[in-house]
Amino acid sequence: MLLKHFYDDNLAQASYLVGCQATGEAVVIDPAREIEPYIKEANENGLTINGALETHIHADFVSGGREMAERLGAVLYVSDEGDDDWKYENIDHLPHQLLKDGDEVKVGNVTIGVLHTPGHTPESLSFTLKDGGTDNAMGVFTGDFLFVGDVGRPDLLDKAAGAEGTAEKGGQQMFESLQKFSELPGYLQIWPGHGAGSACGKSLGAVPQSTLGYEKKENWVFSHADADEFVKELTDGQPAPPVYFAEMKKVNKSGAEIVRDLNDPKRIDNPKELEEAIDNGVQVLDTRDSARFAKNHVKGTFNIPINKSFANWAGWLVDYDRDLYILTDEKDHHEVLTALRSIGIDNVTHYMDATQAVTMSDRTEHYHNVTPEESVSMIENGEAKVLDVRSEEEYEEAHIEGAAHIYLGELPDKIDEVPADRPLVVQCGSGVRSAIAASVLQANGITDIRNMDGGFGLWKKQVNKLIEA
Amino acid sequence: MLLKHFYDDNLAQASYLVGCQATGEAVVIDPAREIEPYIKEANENGLTINGALETHIHADFVSGGREMAERLGAVLYVSDEGDDDWKYENIDHLPHQLLKDGDEVKVGNVTIGVLHTPGHTPESLSFTLKDGGTDNAMGVFTGDFLFVGDVGRPDLLDKAAGAEGTAEKGGQQMFESLQKFSELPGYLQIWPGHGAGSACGKSLGAVPQSTLGYEKKENWVFSHADADEFVKELTDGQPAPPVYFAEMKKVNKSGAEIVRDLNDPKRIDNPKELEEAIDNGVQVLDTRDSARFAKNHVKGTFNIPINKSFANWAGWLVDYDRDLYILTDEKDHHEVLTALRSIGIDNVTHYMDATQAVTMSDRTEHYHNVTPEESVSMIENGEAKVLDVRSEEEYEEAHIEGAAHIYLGELPDKIDEVPADRPLVVQCGSGVRSAIAASVLQANGITDIRNMDGGFGLWKKQVNKLIEA
Amino acid sequence: MLLKHFYDDNLAQASYLVGCQATGEAVVIDPAREIEPYIKEANENGLTINGALETHIHADFVSGGREMAERLGAVLYVSDEGDDDWKYENIDHLPHQLLKDGDEVKVGNVTIGVLHTPGHTPESLSFTLKDGGTDNAMGVFTGDFLFVGDVGRPDLLDKAAGAEGTAEKGGQQMFESLQKFSELPGYLQIWPGHGAGSACGKSLGAVPQSTLGYEKKENWVFSHADADEFVKELTDGQPAPPVYFAEMKKVNKSGAEIVRDLNDPKRIDNPKELEEAIDNGVQVLDTRDSARFAKNHVKGTFNIPINKSFANWAGWLVDYDRDLYILTDEKDHHEVLTALRSIGIDNVTHYMDATQAVTMSDRTEHYHNVTPEESVSMIENGEAKVLDVRSEEEYEEAHIEGAAHIYLGELPDKIDEVPADRPLVVQCGSGVRSAIAASVLQANGITDIRNMDGGFGLWKKQVNKLIEA
Amino acid sequence: MLLKHFYDDNLAQASYLVGCQATGEAVVIDPAREIEPYIKEANENGLTINGALETHIHADFVSGGREMAERLGAVLYVSDEGDDDWKYENIDHLPHQLLKDGDEVKVGNVTIGVLHTPGHTPESLSFTLKDGGTDNAMGVFTGDFLFVGDVGRPDLLDKAAGAEGTAEKGGQQMFESLQKFSELPGYLQIWPGHGAGSACGKSLGAVPQSTLGYEKKENWVFSHADADEFVKELTDGQPAPPVYFAEMKKVNKSGAEIVRDLNDPKRIDNPKELEEAIDNGVQVLDTRDSARFAKNHVKGTFNIPINKSFANWAGWLVDYDRDLYILTDEKDHHEVLTALRSIGIDNVTHYMDATQAVTMSDRTEHYHNVTPEESVSMIENGEAKVLDVRSEEEYEEAHIEGAAHIYLGELPDKIDEVPADRPLVVQCGSGVRSAIAASVLQANGITDIRNMDGGFGLWKKQVNKLIEA
Repeated sequence: MLLKHFYDDNLAQASYLVGCQATGEAVVIDPAREIEPYIKEANENGLTINGALETHIHADFVSGGREMAERLGAVLYVSDEGDDDWKYENIDHLPHQLLKDGDEVKVGNVTIGVLHTPGHTPESLSFTLKDGGTDNAMGVFTGDFLFVGDVGRPDLLDKAAGAEGTAEKGGQQMFESLQKFSELPGYLQIWPGHGAGSACGKSLGAVPQSTLGYEKKENWVFSHADADEFVKELTDGQPAPPVYFAEMKKVNKSGAEIVRDLNDPKRIDNPKELEEAIDNGVQVLDTRDSARFAKNHVKGTFNIPINKSFANWAGWLVDYDRDLYILTDEKDHHEVLTALRSIGIDNVTHYMDATQAVTMSDRTEHYHNVTPEESVSMIENGEAKVLDVRSEEEYEEAHIEGAAHIYLGELPDKIDEVPADRPLVVQCGSGVRSAIAASVLQANGITDIRNMDGGFGLWKKQVNKLIEA
Repeated sequence: MLLKHFYDDNLAQASYLVGCQATGEAVVIDPAREIEPYIKEANENGLTINGALETHIHADFVSGGREMAERLGAVLYVSDEGDDDWKYENIDHLPHQLLKDGDEVKVGNVTIGVLHTPGHTPESLSFTLKDGGTDNAMGVFTGDFLFVGDVGRPDLLDKAAGAEGTAEKGGQQMFESLQKFSELPGYLQIWPGHGAGSACGKSLGAVPQSTLGYEKKENWVFSHADADEFVKELTDGQPAPPVYFAEMKKVNKSGAEIVRDLNDPKRIDNPKELEEAIDNGVQVLDTRDSARFAKNHVKGTFNIPINKSFANWAGWLVDYDRDLYILTDEKDHHEVLTALRSIGIDNVTHYMDATQAVTMSDRTEHYHNVTPEESVSMIENGEAKVLDVRSEEEYEEAHIEGAAHIYLGELPDKIDEVPADRPLVVQCGSGVRSAIAASVLQANGITDIRNMDGGFGLWKKQVNKLIEA
Repeated sequence: MLLKHFYDDNLAQASYLVGCQATGEAVVIDPAREIEPYIKEANENGLTINGALETHIHADFVSGGREMAERLGAVLYVSDEGDDDWKYENIDHLPHQLLKDGDEVKVGNVTIGVLHTPGHTPESLSFTLKDGGTDNAMGVFTGDFLFVGDVGRPDLLDKAAGAEGTAEKGGQQMFESLQKFSELPGYLQIWPGHGAGSACGKSLGAVPQSTLGYEKKENWVFSHADADEFVKELTDGQPAPPVYFAEMKKVNKSGAEIVRDLNDPKRIDNPKELEEAIDNGVQVLDTRDSARFAKNHVKGTFNIPINKSFANWAGWLVDYDRDLYILTDEKDHHEVLTALRSIGIDNVTHYMDATQAVTMSDRTEHYHNVTPEESVSMIENGEAKVLDVRSEEEYEEAHIEGAAHIYLGELPDKIDEVPADRPLVVQCGSGVRSAIAASVLQANGITDIRNMDGGFGLWKKQVNKLIEA
Repeated sequence: MLLKHFYDDNLAQASYLVGCQATGEAVVIDPAREIEPYIKEANENGLTINGALETHIHADFVSGGREMAERLGAVLYVSDEGDDDWKYENIDHLPHQLLKDGDEVKVGNVTIGVLHTPGHTPESLSFTLKDGGTDNAMGVFTGDFLFVGDVGRPDLLDKAAGAEGTAEKGGQQMFESLQKFSELPGYLQIWPGHGAGSACGKSLGAVPQSTLGYEKKENWVFSHADADEFVKELTDGQPAPPVYFAEMKKVNKSGAEIVRDLNDPKRIDNPKELEEAIDNGVQVLDTRDSARFAKNHVKGTFNIPINKSFANWAGWLVDYDRDLYILTDEKDHHEVLTALRSIGIDNVTHYMDATQAVTMSDRTEHYHNVTPEESVSMIENGEAKVLDVRSEEEYEEAHIEGAAHIYLGELPDKIDEVPADRPLVVQCGSGVRSAIAASVLQANGITDIRNMDGGFGLWKKQVNKLIEA
């Protein structure tokens, strides 16, 4: 048996290749939309991918299952649990098989067993993995059911898509799924769909996997005997999910376009063409690092640097319904396009070399970075206004006295609420998110902007006053 | 807590980065000699590496522990168990700490516990991993003690270095270590030092990790109640370990040179310089793929293509005590050098672009590939002789009637035993190892060579006769 | 003034960027279809390309003039000389200007003068270049009129496209153009449209440029006082022009598609899809080096290695009217696609990684390379037949006794003439062209093939008999 | 015959490969220190380099002639003209040949003729090029004697090395060399050692070559009948030559180290090691673009971005006698090292990834960019002082009222003259040179710095006052 983990840093998403070397067969659990890496790995191990299994209808990225079915002729294995709202559509033309609790999928001599574990969503499945020649499973692919130290949220659809009351019901199902699941042997490995937290650092994605026995001891979700208390703790204080989640859910239910049938964006060399597009309302995204963008960029463009947070902020800030142009460094072009497509942004129609655009265009502008120290006096005496773009939760914990608050993700929709009477100092935790915010503001015509380098973190060190808790 | 797996395909060797994000500290378990990847990963997660832990004195690759101590000022944590033959030497000038059973190493809020688990070697340690805020370990780094489906060999030094009687004694210690180890909780993750087997495919490296509970059920090593029976099964039928293992053990005990203090090989552009070196007995290794090498290569050079088996065959075939020149494609240069250094081959003094060498040199030769079908008549009527270069075990299972046998790894030492009265057809399982053998033979002056494409595998399909079992 | 030479090794084609730094304007003379390199160079020098000049309707590559007009808004400057058969079509929607003898084009302070120099084609122009602040030209862009050591052929269309009688008429015009041209100052630099020959090596492309005074002394075309003698020498013994020239001429007259509007080929991962395409008559081109192709390739594919001769042989061997799939190494993909498009092969609909294809497909085959020495006995005793694929001229000078002859370029059309009763040894001058021929033969079902390594050159050294002059 | 131009953008230096395909021989005229590109080109054309010709002892880059002699066994052809001060030293152990006026060097069938053309330096040679089978030369390699539109300076050594009176004498020799040279045929191509000017743009390097006839008409150097007038015009108003020229001259006379015998710089991963080095007086050069450097850099480092001006500023600002550490992006590492070595900076002992250094070090600082508009009031009211780092000539033509002036190249030596009582706004023509200056100032402890973005050029547009002529 072969088991290989894949992890997409941009999406914090895990997927798994399972193969049987004796027969040359392989399947992928929860494939991402770019399927080349799985194919490459399979090839290198003498395997052919003939199946794609989905734990549930994903809300946070475009699944690659249909891509595998279309291009490789792989069988698409999807859930037949949950009610009618939670059925996959438009799969009749593809090789596929619907899965119910208790079913089995054979991958050569390897056996994958199906468990119905609703809670995160009603149709959610987990998959046990059993090598040939034994009756004992080695582990379980839990999708967004059980994570290391946590479980999946039952309320995403409530918040992102306005489907009301699903959170409470999902919470109850989650409790029952956990009870049932806890009866499995403790030595089972747990292979989750996302990275998860840690008692030490609280940062996500830090430990790739766990075991059921360890989770039963350490994961808070197994500490409640009472269902209602569990549901309360589960649904309290969850931050706003990205708006694009609702879009993703629809896309994954009914099927995104096959990537290789998408048109590649056309190259632009003439800055006039770019400027015209901006005048006509096209969104233009510059993916250079923020230092270079700050120093010089084409008026009307906004900036999300290509790094681990790129897909997240693109999901928040890009309008899925309008054409998108991208300005990139050549070396990043493929990664940017792949990251956008991984969350279903398929409307990238043109691109231009970012340096060329900035050098040749006559319409450029810039913004300055200031340290907390440099900005404190103009903030104190009211010359400038602070705009805090961190999350609601961060802002409430503590913020600079007098700072206005709009969450970065919601900035495009709340442009009208931005204080416009004075120069703005945009601020987040470290200066990274506020650099994005500064670019969004400028692209929306609010030009007298400074970005606070170091953000609230450095403010506390350098200034240590003017803070409201 | 952060836990990150590293896997070197060339060495089938696993290492692990463990860090605490709250304090920014990190350590590496069993680092390979090229330490840049660990540093990069640590940097990207805001961590600084301040420790390197070794489970035991490795025999199959050069450890990067001393490299970390020298370059990063990291503390080198090594075993203080085992008798005097198994102590690390020349570490006094480095920051270091000796470890005994029951000791603990703190990595920020994370705790690493020390278990003495002799068997593979007398000083072997395992390390438990415990996150901050809990008394329960999450898993164990087992080094070459417990693998997925197997344990480490106790007999390497017997065979590779001629130290007699260690196998039996190591086997007994292994049995005891397993007994003790089996009392730990079954949910513990097992993070081994090497990839390991599978009930399905028997291929190595197929499942990255396991749990103690699963191993107790499925691993043969837990199935014996009697120590002697266990030792017998453990030591029977083990293949010959690579000769370079003995060298590695010495190097790791007393310390290899720091990589960044090695001189980089000098570039050669003049083929005359290459030819002179060959005349003076320098070994010259061409790392192109075998198809290109077969078609044209410089006389006196031998060929190991740069792929997953490169380090293994280089360890067998390169003489550690003589200067080595390498002929590479530019794109492979760094990988070749790194792979050689990973097993302590530090005497690469010159290199030349392989295509340039072949194009400009007047002294070139080639060999032909033939299919089993094409070669069967000349073999049957005695015009040509078959040389089988597979392992002793493979040869004994079945081979072509009348084939001579010399194991590829031992070919340089047994050149005098090569049948020299007739043209040779060199053969292995698939044609890959025999291509290397063909090059070694030619470099040693045996020029009338054909390589059997497809090897014994294809022979069975195409010819299906003349086989002795 | 800025003058920058560009040279496309694949097409042996020269183009030139001319700019005025004082005003930031630039034009390109005879741009190739891939215009990014010109844009990049212009950008780096602070210039904007606002014009593209064509010396004539090219027959050997797709011009990038229209691409520049469409994408950059550059003015397309083309000849208005010659009769109605030689006018550019479909340019009304583009910014353009028709040029006649004596016209001038201003590039900032730089002046480009227009000379009508028919002969190669009736509408051919040459362009003088004059810096600001002087009345003296610095040199002349001569297109395919005057080369270093030669002139352009007046007979291409006769041979390639069946337009009869144009050669003689073109020769006469050429003579007159030369007379007129020879009156210009001898110090003028000559910047030709193609590389040209040399008294030393006769190889093409060896000296990038010349001067009029030097050419008048050394170029044979200035040595004839009599027009008819000149025309006779000019038109005698010219080799067959590639068949694709006729196609190119049409394309350049009426306009190729804009590259950025072409669909990129779709990636294939499933070898079944490839095999089906082959069964359905799609042409599949493998661009790996011939050593690797010989050793293993998918049945039904043919091989042109990606190197300096690639575009030439692709022009001869690819059918412009059928879909083309390509099998490439990833690193070569862009270069292969660009080279195919540079000669108007736009029907590349799919691609697959070559190694993946060969590894995964069940339908593979190979051919062997043999040295002249190894093949001489089977040729002499009639066991095998030699097929010489060199040019008519090379074959007639001397060839292996009894060898059949079909020119490589014409092989697809003359498959029926290939001797089919015996194994074939395919041979050219060095083994390079015959490797391509071997692949074409196998793709057409003639499978018992050997390629003569070293070709006729090595045959003469090793065997030195059986040669007919 | 093959003739191939090489042009090093960093040094604005031209070199030439000349070969004879019939015999496979080749030589290089004025090779740069990195000789791999010549070898590669020769290989691709089936040529072997067996000679290196030098027109004179270069002062602006390290010659690759000795490198070719040592590594390729090529014959080093150098001038035997000029007096004893101008003889090459330490060449007895190399294959070499001394050249005098009238000598010939054979490259297969190609003939290179030697002309003594003193003026730039006393031993300067020019080389005529004659193809096989003709008595007429095709052109002349003129080194630093005749450029397109100019001649070489006779005063470099006066100014750079303090050798007095050489300028006047060199000017007289130059006049005589020109007189003699002007008698050669006008159609000869002129292949100079450096790029040269243009009536249009005045920018250097704009037209790669010329002809003697054209130069006689257009180049000012042929317009003087009177020697003294010529010398006066030639030596008047020449800017200061870089200080490193004197060093280069010595190096080229006595021989630089062979590049492949240099130690490669050692990698640093620990920021402490970097900080210690800075404390111990090591110079540390950061080669990132200035926007990123400005935003964040390690205290004590200075910044020269890797682009076309890199070698020039490194020559001015790096101290040849102290160890140098470099901080680079990985992708630029080789280019940086090669550029430094091209001008003889061989003391690069360590390097570190620039991003890693900035991220991990605790000692970082930054500086701000300000537009002229933003800085005008603080300049006007005396809050800040302007430091103009342009050349003496630029400053004298016009500058901001009240600005102090120190030429960037001389800044390290004149740190004590920098006005220290107020914040500084550093300014050049466009903001590029002043960014380097800002970094040098900070590295020398002057920290209250702003860089004027857009420099004097933008100042004139935005502010248009406070200018002194």
